[in-house]
Amino acid sequence: MIRAGIVGYGNLGKAIAENIKKTPDFDLVKIFTRRNPGALGDVFEKLDNIDRYKEDIDVIFLCVGSATDVPEIAPRLAGKFNVVDAYDNHHDIPRYIEEMEKEALAGKKSVIVATGWDPGLFSLNRLMIDSIFNSHRTFTFWGKGVSQGHSDAIRGVEGVKYGVQYTVPKQDVLDGVKDIKGKISAGESHDRVCYVVADESEHLRIEERIKTMPDYFADYNTEVNFISEDEFLEKHRGLPHGGHVIGIGESAAGNTQQYEFSLALESNPDFTAAVNIACGRAAYKFAAEGRHGAFTMLDIPPVYLSAKTRNDLIKNLL
Amino acid sequence: MIRAGIVGYGNLGKAIAENIKKTPDFDLVKIFTRRNPGALGDVFEKLDNIDRYKEDIDVIFLCVGSATDVPEIAPRLAGKFNVVDAYDNHHDIPRYIEEMEKEALAGKKSVIVATGWDPGLFSLNRLMIDSIFNSHRTFTFWGKGVSQGHSDAIRGVEGVKYGVQYTVPKQDVLDGVKDIKGKISAGESHDRVCYVVADESEHLRIEERIKTMPDYFADYNTEVNFISEDEFLEKHRGLPHGGHVIGIGESAAGNTQQYEFSLALESNPDFTAAVNIACGRAAYKFAAEGRHGAFTMLDIPPVYLSAKTRNDLIKNLL
Repeated sequence: MIRAGIVGYGNLGKAIAENIKKTPDFDLVKIFTRRNPGALGDVFEKLDNIDRYKEDIDVIFLCVGSATDVPEIAPRLAGKFNVVDAYDNHHDIPRYIEEMEKEALAGKKSVIVATGWDPGLFSLNRLMIDSIFNSHRTFTFWGKGVSQGHSDAIRGVEGVKYGVQYTVPKQDVLDGVKDIKGKISAGESHDRVCYVVADESEHLRIEERIKTMPDYFADYNTEVNFISEDEFLEKHRGLPHGGHVIGIGESAAGNTQQYEFSLALESNPDFTAAVNIACGRAAYKFAAEGRHGAFTMLDIPPVYLSAKTRNDLIKNLL
Repeated sequence: MIRAGIVGYGNLGKAIAENIKKTPDFDLVKIFTRRNPGALGDVFEKLDNIDRYKEDIDVIFLCVGSATDVPEIAPRLAGKFNVVDAYDNHHDIPRYIEEMEKEALAGKKSVIVATGWDPGLFSLNRLMIDSIFNSHRTFTFWGKGVSQGHSDAIRGVEGVKYGVQYTVPKQDVLDGVKDIKGKISAGESHDRVCYVVADESEHLRIEERIKTMPDYFADYNTEVNFISEDEFLEKHRGLPHGGHVIGIGESAAGNTQQYEFSLALESNPDFTAAVNIACGRAAYKFAAEGRHGAFTMLDIPPVYLSAKTRNDLIKNLL
């Protein structure tokens, strides 16, 4: 049994807790929170007390926000625990790994950073495509799914009561991907579809404000749909997501070879949680072997992700 | 530079030789053949002389038939060279790995067996699905593509001048995969489409003979098309293939999560060759680190497949 702790209890922390309950090789020891844990139940504990559990926890799943919380909290944990995180600030990851590596080596711990699907499984497939083909064009499409950053941006517009934004790959671009010769921008390959609840008198102003928002919407074909509160609550409270990584490789003999990896997820946090947990097995095994430091999904031998033995996997899945 | 040798010069051996020419981190030293190499050119050498090249070759790509040649030749090479093979006799792989492990350890070599796409990339994706989801239904579809075994079976029928068989996943099964609850047989999920050149007076007999052939065709919806020799030579000499590995996972919260990996290959040997070469990098790196023994694609840390540095990969692909 791998004894797990969770830090943070938002969408991802909750999903990891739920998943661990159904994962036979994991046992949930504590959920650490900065809120008042007393009100939540016995499995909760104050984050300030986490050091008391150093001997009781094999792997910590770090489930706080990537914007500011992960970079602040993770290095403090990495010297004391084997940590798995879903840090998704692509731009900062190289610096972050270096910092985590230093802490993990000093504390003789194994940490796996930036796990999930992008970064994570999508990265793994981009690497596969790049390693297999000497010459290739590779495209990443996101969606159809809820972008939390863009939904937050909508909700920040004055007068918006509820709002959600779906990122949707353009179907004609997906269908014709084999023939795309150059680069293609996110705006050329994706639409942004918004559902908003607001007072009717505000619709024109809100639509204009959303469609012209720089960075978020201005460079995209953006559709704004105003719907009733009832419809919003019935249809738009989930967090579906997914996407495609498509590599068009040209082989030595000039043949076109299409490699595609796709996800269609009814719940983004649930899937991210499930990937995080598989990586938790790898962190646990790395630690058991004395392989300390900071790793990514690109470093993990796939058999380390499984609860089954290597012999079983070779026999049944190879 | 990784100095490569190739054993065998059929479809796969030729494809590896062509691919290596365009792969900057590999250099082709010799192609070993059981035929008379003198007639073929300087890069060819008699297989019997391979031991003379022990110091000149870093990785041998074994490109002989899986039916009898690989099990016979591979163990003799594994004690002397780092070997990569595309052994695809799924049923025999566990026994074969054990034998290769023994030889490789004795000779202090690193061998990677059963590389390619199935076994290989498809296995990797089956493992990912199985590691991520506590509960899942996973389906492998093959095609649309040429099955060499079934094409050989057609060509074995008396009176057949040319023949090829395409395995084709049933589109309605693919489209409805999310709703398949139980197991589904290969015959329920695939059609077999044959193109045959034969004298018209023989058509009825040949069609009957093909459609009733046990194991190969009898359990399938089999279509036999008789075409002209010209049409055959124009349209059916390629070796396209591909397929899908689809996992329908159920997350803890009851959400349906679809994971899909697909290949659509204009040339099966070209793609298998490209995957073999990426695995050649891993064999080379394992050997350089003194990690001896027999490995599979399920054991390889993905960064080992790339010619690029880990830092580059983390920065650009994660």
